[in-house]
Amino acid sequence: MTRIAFKARLYVPDNLAMGMSIIPNRNQQHYLASVMRLVTGDIVALFNGVDGEWRAAIQSIGRRSCSLDVIAQTRPQQASPDLWLLFAPVKKARLDFIAQKASEMGASVIWPTRTDFCQVTRVNDDRLTANAIEAAEQTERLDIAEIRDFAPLNDVLAAVPEDRLLVWCDEASATRGDRNAVSVFAAHPKPESAAILIGPEGGFSENERRILDRRENCLKVSLGPRILRADTAAIAALTCFQSVYGDWPDIT
Amino acid sequence: MTRIAFKARLYVPDNLAMGMSIIPNRNQQHYLASVMRLVTGDIVALFNGVDGEWRAAIQSIGRRSCSLDVIAQTRPQQASPDLWLLFAPVKKARLDFIAQKASEMGASVIWPTRTDFCQVTRVNDDRLTANAIEAAEQTERLDIAEIRDFAPLNDVLAAVPEDRLLVWCDEASATRGDRNAVSVFAAHPKPESAAILIGPEGGFSENERRILDRRENCLKVSLGPRILRADTAAIAALTCFQSVYGDWPDIT
Repeated sequence: MTRIAFKARLYVPDNLAMGMSIIPNRNQQHYLASVMRLVTGDIVALFNGVDGEWRAAIQSIGRRSCSLDVIAQTRPQQASPDLWLLFAPVKKARLDFIAQKASEMGASVIWPTRTDFCQVTRVNDDRLTANAIEAAEQTERLDIAEIRDFAPLNDVLAAVPEDRLLVWCDEASATRGDRNAVSVFAAHPKPESAAILIGPEGGFSENERRILDRRENCLKVSLGPRILRADTAAIAALTCFQSVYGDWPDIT
Repeated sequence: MTRIAFKARLYVPDNLAMGMSIIPNRNQQHYLASVMRLVTGDIVALFNGVDGEWRAAIQSIGRRSCSLDVIAQTRPQQASPDLWLLFAPVKKARLDFIAQKASEMGASVIWPTRTDFCQVTRVNDDRLTANAIEAAEQTERLDIAEIRDFAPLNDVLAAVPEDRLLVWCDEASATRGDRNAVSVFAAHPKPESAAILIGPEGGFSENERRILDRRENCLKVSLGPRILRADTAAIAALTCFQSVYGDWPDIT
């Protein structure tokens, strides 16, 4: 369900302003020249996470070099909702998937979290970042989700400030009528910032449940009666949050 | 986020009743014996989409043969909400994904639909069915989503009865404040049955939009300001529907 507004849309680390000349990196050059087969004069979109989105024209393009002229701003910078996704990482392909999908759903921070029942021991941050960048390019975000280093649940929870609402997607609440995520969010005042926590296959350990149960400013929510894989749960939870609290359009 | 209630959970085509003996198929035998390394006496769950879920004990197990004794029903049969997913199919891996995720989210019918901007020309039904079965086994559903044959949008729309609510996930409504899917559902009486329609990359053609705009009993909804891939859009739309209308727990 993509709208094609530009022939390509690229994240660049450079500052963006009218009249600047941008040299895309090698992968981007290959993409523009050989995949998209763009030519001099074609228009692409650029963003850097700070300066909004800019229209740029291909000034020169070849196999080994490419230069883009920045023409005009098309959208001012806009922050994504301040929404972290904390999740117990899963196997490689599904992990890529979570980084992509969480980016599409507008998470601002993606934080792989080691829980007691987590089966994964290493996470490749660069790969997650590449997935987050690619998803941001495609989903027309203006910023890139920040990938944090894989860390134990206790450290991650300690780094969530008390005033950041913790949303605990609790598999034990699956059939609890008072825990439907959308209803819980609708009944609770909109938070300034939040962190959604998704457990691994097998859920949270008894010890983790005790720690989470004691946590202040924490909502336990249900994502329905079916058992969801971690990647599905992440998208479902982000959907519920964004539709009620986040940047989905609202009549109010 | 999976609870492991049984050592394995299998869909079987057989009738299920107390005292019956079930012979799993070759793939299932391999899975039980070589992947899960189960032994005689281990307990598995069986379902067939009709008779609910049953506890069964491994009576014998080897490389080439396996037999299960059905012991007792653990859950009565329960229908999924009557919710179809109509979607323009995408490339292979993501298509598998949609069948899995729509099953996890409880869709009753999964119907690949050919739209004007759809890039896919063939869909492997058997592969989609295998994905739907595997997802049902893992997600603890009691039924299997029905996979319908790839068909043109006009034929699919003609086969949606007038009294089945059509939910059109309309990329042109992305920023419309009155189209937030959750708000639209909450403001509309709960339908007996519904079909969610997800477009391809590039959205719907002008002609398709005219046809959909004229459709009675159709809600246009927004899934937020970001451009979603078809698989993400399917999960997000099913989440919104199930949380408001479907079988997610509710206090009312």
